[in-house]
Amino acid sequence: MHHPQALSRNGVAQAAADILVRLRARSPRIHCITNSVAQNFTANVLLAAGCVPSMTLSPEEIGTFVASAQGLLVNLGTFDRERRQATVIAIDAAAAHKLPWVLDPVFIDRNPLRAAFARELIGSGPTVLRLNHTEFSALSADAPSGDGAMTFARTNGVVIALSGKTDLITDGERIAALSNGHALMAKVTAMGCAGSALIAACLSIEPDAFRATSAALLIIGIAGEIAAEKSAGPGSFAAAILDVLHSLDGPTLINRAKVS
Amino acid sequence: MHHPQALSRNGVAQAAADILVRLRARSPRIHCITNSVAQNFTANVLLAAGCVPSMTLSPEEIGTFVASAQGLLVNLGTFDRERRQATVIAIDAAAAHKLPWVLDPVFIDRNPLRAAFARELIGSGPTVLRLNHTEFSALSADAPSGDGAMTFARTNGVVIALSGKTDLITDGERIAALSNGHALMAKVTAMGCAGSALIAACLSIEPDAFRATSAALLIIGIAGEIAAEKSAGPGSFAAAILDVLHSLDGPTLINRAKVS
Amino acid sequence: MHHPQALSRNGVAQAAADILVRLRARSPRIHCITNSVAQNFTANVLLAAGCVPSMTLSPEEIGTFVASAQGLLVNLGTFDRERRQATVIAIDAAAAHKLPWVLDPVFIDRNPLRAAFARELIGSGPTVLRLNHTEFSALSADAPSGDGAMTFARTNGVVIALSGKTDLITDGERIAALSNGHALMAKVTAMGCAGSALIAACLSIEPDAFRATSAALLIIGIAGEIAAEKSAGPGSFAAAILDVLHSLDGPTLINRAKVS
Repeated sequence: MHHPQALSRNGVAQAAADILVRLRARSPRIHCITNSVAQNFTANVLLAAGCVPSMTLSPEEIGTFVASAQGLLVNLGTFDRERRQATVIAIDAAAAHKLPWVLDPVFIDRNPLRAAFARELIGSGPTVLRLNHTEFSALSADAPSGDGAMTFARTNGVVIALSGKTDLITDGERIAALSNGHALMAKVTAMGCAGSALIAACLSIEPDAFRATSAALLIIGIAGEIAAEKSAGPGSFAAAILDVLHSLDGPTLINRAKVS
Repeated sequence: MHHPQALSRNGVAQAAADILVRLRARSPRIHCITNSVAQNFTANVLLAAGCVPSMTLSPEEIGTFVASAQGLLVNLGTFDRERRQATVIAIDAAAAHKLPWVLDPVFIDRNPLRAAFARELIGSGPTVLRLNHTEFSALSADAPSGDGAMTFARTNGVVIALSGKTDLITDGERIAALSNGHALMAKVTAMGCAGSALIAACLSIEPDAFRATSAALLIIGIAGEIAAEKSAGPGSFAAAILDVLHSLDGPTLINRAKVS
Repeated sequence: MHHPQALSRNGVAQAAADILVRLRARSPRIHCITNSVAQNFTANVLLAAGCVPSMTLSPEEIGTFVASAQGLLVNLGTFDRERRQATVIAIDAAAAHKLPWVLDPVFIDRNPLRAAFARELIGSGPTVLRLNHTEFSALSADAPSGDGAMTFARTNGVVIALSGKTDLITDGERIAALSNGHALMAKVTAMGCAGSALIAACLSIEPDAFRATSAALLIIGIAGEIAAEKSAGPGSFAAAILDVLHSLDGPTLINRAKVS
């Protein structure tokens, strides 16, 4: 049996504060394969956090773009031939250049073809797999719980970010439960995709994928909480979370982090 | 000659208030075939109103997505091969599962190929056809008026929502004229498409298509009026209308409805 | 040797004020070939400035749409087969109908295929070429400076808008340096693309392409400055610049213009 390592709340929050500073100093370029619904907001979240987005899907050039990027996001949000082809080329380029990448297998519970493609992609070695409980259950016979996620992480050599009321992050040895965030985040399309893009950004400057993933989800969750305090509903919230991400600082992360 | 049924202002407004409550209670999923300009805003309008959007266009999976949705929007905003193919599959799935669907034949006045495709789609039995005066004239020899719309509705067995300064809604027997709304609505791209998505959402929980359509247009028109009061221009307006949709309630609809 | 014509600050600002009034009076339709990340914001910028956007990319109909438009933007933001094909058809239609058009060759420094395609398009005679220093260097052996831009403009018979901290606009004889704008403009995706769309709009109502280009960049730069004063970060800024564009007037342009 596995005994997950205890993680101090302060350790995770301090690492996030440190990663945020480096993110802004280095401005990594993150290439995103994502659906057309999510592209604009995802690009603006990356820009607000100090990163540079790129989003081309053309098979003739995506290899070149990924090769010179610092991180890669693969979101299965719209699952067409163009994006599948782009994904295969992009993942090869990421492997060749040792780039970290995040797989966000959205809606695989609705379509067995998506689930099969997601399984194939997990075999190609993503650094992080981010998914919700329903998506987890479409991939694994384990329960969508801390134990199930740890088992899946160890078996597949991947960091799991299991979204829910509380986000669970585990590399199979360590596990963190983050409970920041706000209900309005579910009322803005592409919020989840933008969070996954932020994971790719943090991975690009932090070799410990567990710490990088926790940092990204802490940053977006706390930004969401602060933005909600300034918002009158989902429209002003979508603008406010970009404002907050742009000015967020380490002490705020440390003060507000809800990690257990 | 036809004598349209008189409709009480209160009846339409009361039905809208009732439909809004059910919309939030049931959270229907609405599948939208729409152009990439409109996708993000349309998704956010559906979310703000308490619904769930889905938007995949891939021919391999759109049938599955529509089959498990509660309503369908077909917008001809960009008219490419991928979307035409997706549309045919989606409409078959909607028919097979008795799903209500809305056709928004944008720009058919600019291109005879679009108009021909729109006519073919009308033959497949949309529940509601939403269009402006120019688009109506590209489809019908009748005048884009109340009488013309009623004739077209009866002939084609479809509810017509004819957009203009005043929106006319008719099923061929009943007719309502709604004059809520604000000029800023025309200054935000995809506002019309989002309104059509809201019609599909209301159809999914209200079997009387005439009432459902009137409710959707009353909801978006009144939300637009309230949002305009809080806005400094089209940018803040686009955010404010989402905020207002999210918190809109029945009594406000009943107080503000301009129905004749 | 060439001696650029001196341009009075007042002349450029006065021309911009005049062009802004005509833009609102005539509401030109601008057809935009641009990537799916940029489409929504670009459409909203055109609407806020009083224009009408259209964005279809379908090869079957883009010729018809461009033929009846008043201006054309070609942005190479995503470089896929569909957009390349659409571009060739659109440029032919623009030539046949003597429509002004703007080429925005983004990311040509990252991919030799894009650069080759951009060179081919420059041979088709765009009215304005808008690019940054890196993109300029991918096309020209000249330095990305005022002199280099003037030489390139004369050789290729095109107005150059060279973006940077200061924007340089030249037709090879005249040159203007505009230094309005704000750092937040670089934190909102598609801001550059929207500026290029505004150039196409101004070209559609002002035959002097040098004046039209200067006017467009003055308008967006000053709108950005005013919006930044009202914003808490990039999210509220993106909304505020649309609000400001919608209500901007000539006297404000004349008061705020930084032209040398």
